[in-house]
Amino acid sequence: MIIQYIFELIGTFVFAISGVLAVRDKENDVFGAGFTGFVTAIGGGSLRDILLGSYPLAWIDDIYLVYTIFIGVMVSYLFSTYLMRLRKTLFLFDTLGIALFTILGTEKALSLGVRVEIAAIMGMFSAVMGGVIRDTLTNTTPILFSKEVYASACLFGAIFYLVLNYFGLSRDINLLLSVAIIIAIRLLAVKYKISLPSLK
Amino acid sequence: MIIQYIFELIGTFVFAISGVLAVRDKENDVFGAGFTGFVTAIGGGSLRDILLGSYPLAWIDDIYLVYTIFIGVMVSYLFSTYLMRLRKTLFLFDTLGIALFTILGTEKALSLGVRVEIAAIMGMFSAVMGGVIRDTLTNTTPILFSKEVYASACLFGAIFYLVLNYFGLSRDINLLLSVAIIIAIRLLAVKYKISLPSLK
Amino acid sequence: MIIQYIFELIGTFVFAISGVLAVRDKENDVFGAGFTGFVTAIGGGSLRDILLGSYPLAWIDDIYLVYTIFIGVMVSYLFSTYLMRLRKTLFLFDTLGIALFTILGTEKALSLGVRVEIAAIMGMFSAVMGGVIRDTLTNTTPILFSKEVYASACLFGAIFYLVLNYFGLSRDINLLLSVAIIIAIRLLAVKYKISLPSLK
Repeated sequence: MIIQYIFELIGTFVFAISGVLAVRDKENDVFGAGFTGFVTAIGGGSLRDILLGSYPLAWIDDIYLVYTIFIGVMVSYLFSTYLMRLRKTLFLFDTLGIALFTILGTEKALSLGVRVEIAAIMGMFSAVMGGVIRDTLTNTTPILFSKEVYASACLFGAIFYLVLNYFGLSRDINLLLSVAIIIAIRLLAVKYKISLPSLK
Repeated sequence: MIIQYIFELIGTFVFAISGVLAVRDKENDVFGAGFTGFVTAIGGGSLRDILLGSYPLAWIDDIYLVYTIFIGVMVSYLFSTYLMRLRKTLFLFDTLGIALFTILGTEKALSLGVRVEIAAIMGMFSAVMGGVIRDTLTNTTPILFSKEVYASACLFGAIFYLVLNYFGLSRDINLLLSVAIIIAIRLLAVKYKISLPSLK
Repeated sequence: MIIQYIFELIGTFVFAISGVLAVRDKENDVFGAGFTGFVTAIGGGSLRDILLGSYPLAWIDDIYLVYTIFIGVMVSYLFSTYLMRLRKTLFLFDTLGIALFTILGTEKALSLGVRVEIAAIMGMFSAVMGGVIRDTLTNTTPILFSKEVYASACLFGAIFYLVLNYFGLSRDINLLLSVAIIIAIRLLAVKYKISLPSLK
């Protein structure tokens, strides 16, 4: 459980950084950048909890999440030029972050007694909605509309987890497997530039 | 009551289609399009219920709404070219959808004990906010800012319903009349290109 | 207390006007403009209350807030040309509005038992999120990303209030001082074109 919590903090930390860097080249001051980082980090989980009516929200209940975001924002300020060159590493962390948020979000929804279909949706929302809110605030087309497999990997991973869970796989192994499969899909899609077809 | 539920499903179905078609010509994959359809279909009702603190949200409580959206998205995928040519028919269904969502949203708010002014606003929000969220996500200026009478028809219909309700008209007749008046206003406005004046 | 309530109404009134004027030069009808005014006025407080799970929302509980917004919208319609020339006066009211909303939002969060860090964030959110939602809806880059000190002044004022509160300053004097310091920072920043540095 302590490892899971550490991963949650890492995911939150990386989301905060991704939010700050997203507006780095736009016209805005450091405060606006930090604000974006904050909203990116809390957005997905907050939306999930609000949709489920689960209070208090995670970051309001656990101040360490807020501190983690604060540190992530500070790190982005200090090393933004350096971090831009680290995009590959950050991409790996971001992928880890969304994979973990998906499964933890799915589990949280399940624990609140909703149906599995809803749990899968909530898992995906936890992972991608922070980024969607970030992109909406900054007038960018949300990444989940762009060509690389992103939200779909999360939804697939959530369903994968729920199926294994249904067949009674122990939770820790299932968490590990499901997180791994989301990461694998995402990495392969980016490496081989695999996209889902467009509508036209 | 069964007829009302069927209409709700039809409204949800049409909203999902309208969401998918809205991003059809944008750069996005089928998953992004389905996501948009989903958010469009659940957006208005979810916002109403969140503002009113009414849990569980309708689509979380009733899985058939989620299935309906799923079918709507699938239909959009398969027949998107055909559906684009059916715009007139879709427009009729969309109009039926917002009319019905307005009155059902107004009734739900009333049943939660809020004042009539709030109920009217909630009725309008139920009908138009899904589309507003869709347009915001896709970086389009929300339709309710464009020239055809849209949200105002919903607000008028909600007030119309509340006035007749105050004077004791039986609920079924009132529902029918109020839905009809919203549809009539909207169709006439579009047919005769009637717009509210702009501010300047 | 009656004075505080009057200031709340003034703040709400000014926010409604600022929302209407924000879309004055865009393609939209009077209804869309009023809608924007409404969302601007209720947005920040509603988001705060939803994040905190505090129901009913202020404007749903107190119909006078809705009436105040309605009057603000009407005033904007009738005097929009005149109000555009009054921008300086409106700017003063807007500054008073965000200052007051910040401290009242901070107090409300505190009264719900959250930590001071969360209370400061909620105070800022109460003040600026209505404008962020307004700007997002109208496809404008949110003001808090632009160069003048805005949200940061609110956050600073909220922290200022919480520090004095910690040291036992009486509430009325503290409210007065904290509102004054937000106003002072904002006015000085605008007058001397002081900005926080950008990230690059």
